[in-house]
Amino acid sequence: MGVLGASGYAGHQLCSLIQRHPSLSLKFATAHDQRGTTARIDGQTIPLLAPDDAKLGEAEIVFSALPHGSSHEWVTRARQAGARVVDLSADLRPGSGVDGAAYGLTELSRTQVAGAGIVANPGCYPTSVLLALAPLFAQALVLEGSTITINSASGVSGAGRSPRRELMFAEVSEDYRAYGVGNTHSHLSEMRAFTRSMGADVDLVFTPHLLPVARGILSTITVPIKAPLDDVLQPWRDAYSDEPFVELASDPPTLREVVHRNVIRIAVIALRETRVPTLLVLSALDNLMKGAAGQAIQNANLMLGLAECAGLPA
Amino acid sequence: MGVLGASGYAGHQLCSLIQRHPSLSLKFATAHDQRGTTARIDGQTIPLLAPDDAKLGEAEIVFSALPHGSSHEWVTRARQAGARVVDLSADLRPGSGVDGAAYGLTELSRTQVAGAGIVANPGCYPTSVLLALAPLFAQALVLEGSTITINSASGVSGAGRSPRRELMFAEVSEDYRAYGVGNTHSHLSEMRAFTRSMGADVDLVFTPHLLPVARGILSTITVPIKAPLDDVLQPWRDAYSDEPFVELASDPPTLREVVHRNVIRIAVIALRETRVPTLLVLSALDNLMKGAAGQAIQNANLMLGLAECAGLPA
Amino acid sequence: MGVLGASGYAGHQLCSLIQRHPSLSLKFATAHDQRGTTARIDGQTIPLLAPDDAKLGEAEIVFSALPHGSSHEWVTRARQAGARVVDLSADLRPGSGVDGAAYGLTELSRTQVAGAGIVANPGCYPTSVLLALAPLFAQALVLEGSTITINSASGVSGAGRSPRRELMFAEVSEDYRAYGVGNTHSHLSEMRAFTRSMGADVDLVFTPHLLPVARGILSTITVPIKAPLDDVLQPWRDAYSDEPFVELASDPPTLREVVHRNVIRIAVIALRETRVPTLLVLSALDNLMKGAAGQAIQNANLMLGLAECAGLPA
Amino acid sequence: MGVLGASGYAGHQLCSLIQRHPSLSLKFATAHDQRGTTARIDGQTIPLLAPDDAKLGEAEIVFSALPHGSSHEWVTRARQAGARVVDLSADLRPGSGVDGAAYGLTELSRTQVAGAGIVANPGCYPTSVLLALAPLFAQALVLEGSTITINSASGVSGAGRSPRRELMFAEVSEDYRAYGVGNTHSHLSEMRAFTRSMGADVDLVFTPHLLPVARGILSTITVPIKAPLDDVLQPWRDAYSDEPFVELASDPPTLREVVHRNVIRIAVIALRETRVPTLLVLSALDNLMKGAAGQAIQNANLMLGLAECAGLPA
Repeated sequence: MGVLGASGYAGHQLCSLIQRHPSLSLKFATAHDQRGTTARIDGQTIPLLAPDDAKLGEAEIVFSALPHGSSHEWVTRARQAGARVVDLSADLRPGSGVDGAAYGLTELSRTQVAGAGIVANPGCYPTSVLLALAPLFAQALVLEGSTITINSASGVSGAGRSPRRELMFAEVSEDYRAYGVGNTHSHLSEMRAFTRSMGADVDLVFTPHLLPVARGILSTITVPIKAPLDDVLQPWRDAYSDEPFVELASDPPTLREVVHRNVIRIAVIALRETRVPTLLVLSALDNLMKGAAGQAIQNANLMLGLAECAGLPA
Repeated sequence: MGVLGASGYAGHQLCSLIQRHPSLSLKFATAHDQRGTTARIDGQTIPLLAPDDAKLGEAEIVFSALPHGSSHEWVTRARQAGARVVDLSADLRPGSGVDGAAYGLTELSRTQVAGAGIVANPGCYPTSVLLALAPLFAQALVLEGSTITINSASGVSGAGRSPRRELMFAEVSEDYRAYGVGNTHSHLSEMRAFTRSMGADVDLVFTPHLLPVARGILSTITVPIKAPLDDVLQPWRDAYSDEPFVELASDPPTLREVVHRNVIRIAVIALRETRVPTLLVLSALDNLMKGAAGQAIQNANLMLGLAECAGLPA
Repeated sequence: MGVLGASGYAGHQLCSLIQRHPSLSLKFATAHDQRGTTARIDGQTIPLLAPDDAKLGEAEIVFSALPHGSSHEWVTRARQAGARVVDLSADLRPGSGVDGAAYGLTELSRTQVAGAGIVANPGCYPTSVLLALAPLFAQALVLEGSTITINSASGVSGAGRSPRRELMFAEVSEDYRAYGVGNTHSHLSEMRAFTRSMGADVDLVFTPHLLPVARGILSTITVPIKAPLDDVLQPWRDAYSDEPFVELASDPPTLREVVHRNVIRIAVIALRETRVPTLLVLSALDNLMKGAAGQAIQNANLMLGLAECAGLPA
Repeated sequence: MGVLGASGYAGHQLCSLIQRHPSLSLKFATAHDQRGTTARIDGQTIPLLAPDDAKLGEAEIVFSALPHGSSHEWVTRARQAGARVVDLSADLRPGSGVDGAAYGLTELSRTQVAGAGIVANPGCYPTSVLLALAPLFAQALVLEGSTITINSASGVSGAGRSPRRELMFAEVSEDYRAYGVGNTHSHLSEMRAFTRSMGADVDLVFTPHLLPVARGILSTITVPIKAPLDDVLQPWRDAYSDEPFVELASDPPTLREVVHRNVIRIAVIALRETRVPTLLVLSALDNLMKGAAGQAIQNANLMLGLAECAGLPA
């Protein structure tokens, strides 16, 4: 395996998962700004190459954890060198306007992923939202023309590892704020494209927030539905009862329950005293695991014909 | 002034504000479980009495920071002893089923507060939500029959100071969760009663969350409106342009901007790409200041004919 | 395996390690206050028994994570029922005045542990201090009659899981303090007893501190030595070069490097400009892993003739 | 007043204190990297100038919160323009090799400060250490030739506001580490110079640590003394009984007790079971207040003949 962009949080998590994986091994890791140095990951020392020095063709799968905008070029180079690619950037995802990649929301697209040359690994927010909503879309339960209101909160590692004043400890600690407000966050087009592809005719309102924690995303979603459900969890049971990485919970899920694990944990509650029957859907995941590197390994396992759970902490 | 329940976070903040106030002085402070001990507040030592030992009638105003359920009895006792009362509990608030108190959402009910024998000080969440929404209600701009979706997140001091495992540092740090889900939180009836009193015919969906911070509440609210507004902030300017404790912001407000201050900070954004014109209203306040003790002092200032800002950090 | 006291942090960590261990399985877990309920550990549900209902004799090894003072009785009961015991309490450690247990500072007492009926698992602070200092004691390098100054800082999980006001999030966050000051902390007698057993004639000054983190201990130790060392790390290399759970570092170790791992990480620096040659020894470990449950499993592995590393994240 | 370097934490705190001060007003504030923008401080908007555009001579006192190394030049310029200067950098402090400034450890040098043209405001660590130790030096109680061991821990704001990866939230949260180890920290020469000036013949061992908090320094100091003291606090009472900004405590001081206040809080404990009589001296202060901007205002009050406490939260 090769990892492009190994100095960021997702790239670092990828290297760690590959090292602990029973069947994968790390051929190279690149980090442009730290080329020539080494990274210490789980007690092992890994050399960091300049991207140009990576022998892309020697890796069966190249993972790109490069920034949005610069990833696409390297995905193309890696493909031309003969590697298959899992791209963790937004460059090739639904809504990006670029075709050619399978969308790697693993539980919902196993066949496409298994045979793909390029997998566009979903964004952390879209993973937390779309896996939570897909069972309602699949059974066409959402009220047509209604608005799904999504409030998500993410740990700081989701904002990347490049030094920025607003991400420093003394700024973030004891603080909390919304950002990307007014339906302007770049992940919204990915959510909309997937929602439409599932046949849902709805508006989405998405407001992300920055949490004073290192890892984790909690999404709090209200969904108007066509009619009350006798058993609100039934659509999720129908969709996910055999899924090793999807947990259905009776209590609201918490970040503590999911960090450092490749799972999404979902709870569903019927709201009291609303004219339109409405569900509250809550989901929690680790933005670096199921929301990024973990799901990337899950996709790679499928691409390589390995057990889907191999090397992944459930 | 007298403070009942001085050992909790709100009671402690009340004592601190009274001590620093240019015109008020603290006659007594009670704390049932710590009676006979002292509290150290801003470098001064305050004796904590048993409630039965407090000479209620000697305080011009008695503040009750007692728990919900046990406050009502002491409010009655203090009134009978001749004191006026600001009750920080929910016992006498709108929606509680008990009449006889003026609702102390100061900016919206100055006349009633000024002459009241009992003021029901609003809850921390209702303050953050109702001050944020009132300008829309006042101008009848909210779409009738629609649903207002409220996601709030509060610091841990909002859950009180009694030891509970789920509030311990090693549980809360690096965690985040929703609670009181499904429209079951007790503050919802207070919000509904006030919303109805403003003539708004809407559903409310309210989901509170527990933040790993000590202080502060951020509310993220989506409101369908009848028609797009040319200037989204205009209703708030109309309502609050002369208010010393309401700040209108162009950027999303943050907890850091409001903690330790008696202000609410509000931003309003028009949402893009929704069928129904919808506003995103964000508000931030310190749950122990504008959400509790600060607003209580603001009300007391009015009751005593003092400058409303006296002793309050803006 | 059986775990007594599974509802605390160390007991919970023990259950988790046993569940993930390739050769061990959990026969029972007790928790007096939560008897009859279940615990959710790594996605599995474990029944919590009353201690009296545990079939002590059915476990090859019983781990006691009971509080100091109440553990001794249960250690005796478990022995009488035929089990071997690893006791995580202080009841049977050096300095406790009670004999009969092997001291389980694994790297330094493998033979005694392997054959022991009872192992007294070291305290978290003593593990961090004694493994750091032992190489100097072993080579008699410490200046006789001098004072070793130990400043340690521990995460909040070290104070246990019973609800206490001073451990609540809103009290601990953004705070830091010393406690057990003046050489009064109970772990000091354990450190002294071991230090004497290594032949060192020194005074110890030990000041623990409470950190606003969930896990981890950092010990900062100054040690006067008889003569300057050409290579300050040599004594540690001599002692630990083949140890899988001891890491020697050139930079100051950090909590982030060791949490969730069963390691101690040690750095040694010669102090400049001191009359008496003096070393600064720094050690970091996870108080619930190498400082408690991890080391307990390490000892159990030895007792059962398993690979010492089995089931332990290095 | 003028503030050079207003965009850092100390500069920001200075502007805030000046704005709230009853007798001072802010003439200008500079911030090279943010020149032309504004800062929002306590609800007021302050223009940030390029340093070259500041009319240095129009401020009675210029505070320099510029980085070490670049401050000296601006101190000189401000003096030449006719202003008096309080320099918060290390450029002119004892041990820097540059003379000409009064050392502004206020409680110990009031006369020199009052008449000074330039005051070198002490470092945050030296303030926490030297005010804690000075009473022992003053009465010549420290054992000659012995070693004073100083372990300090500081909040992240002490490391400045320039973006650096190791200060980002996701790196610092849940972490703790020593830095500047081996007696290499730049503040040590300042401590040594002052210690010598008090006539003490001792070695200092100083190890600073980085705490996951925004503000505050706790210093834990062991001091061998010539003979046991009947009343360990007496030297501190002798020195500080009338000091408004020095608090003597019977319990270990905590950061929570001192943040946002211009105080140092000190406790002293006799260590048990040491051959050489030894004291444990603990001190806590807010690194941005008594450790920087607060002490700078305290010095400015003296220079201007104002009440020393004016505008300072005790």
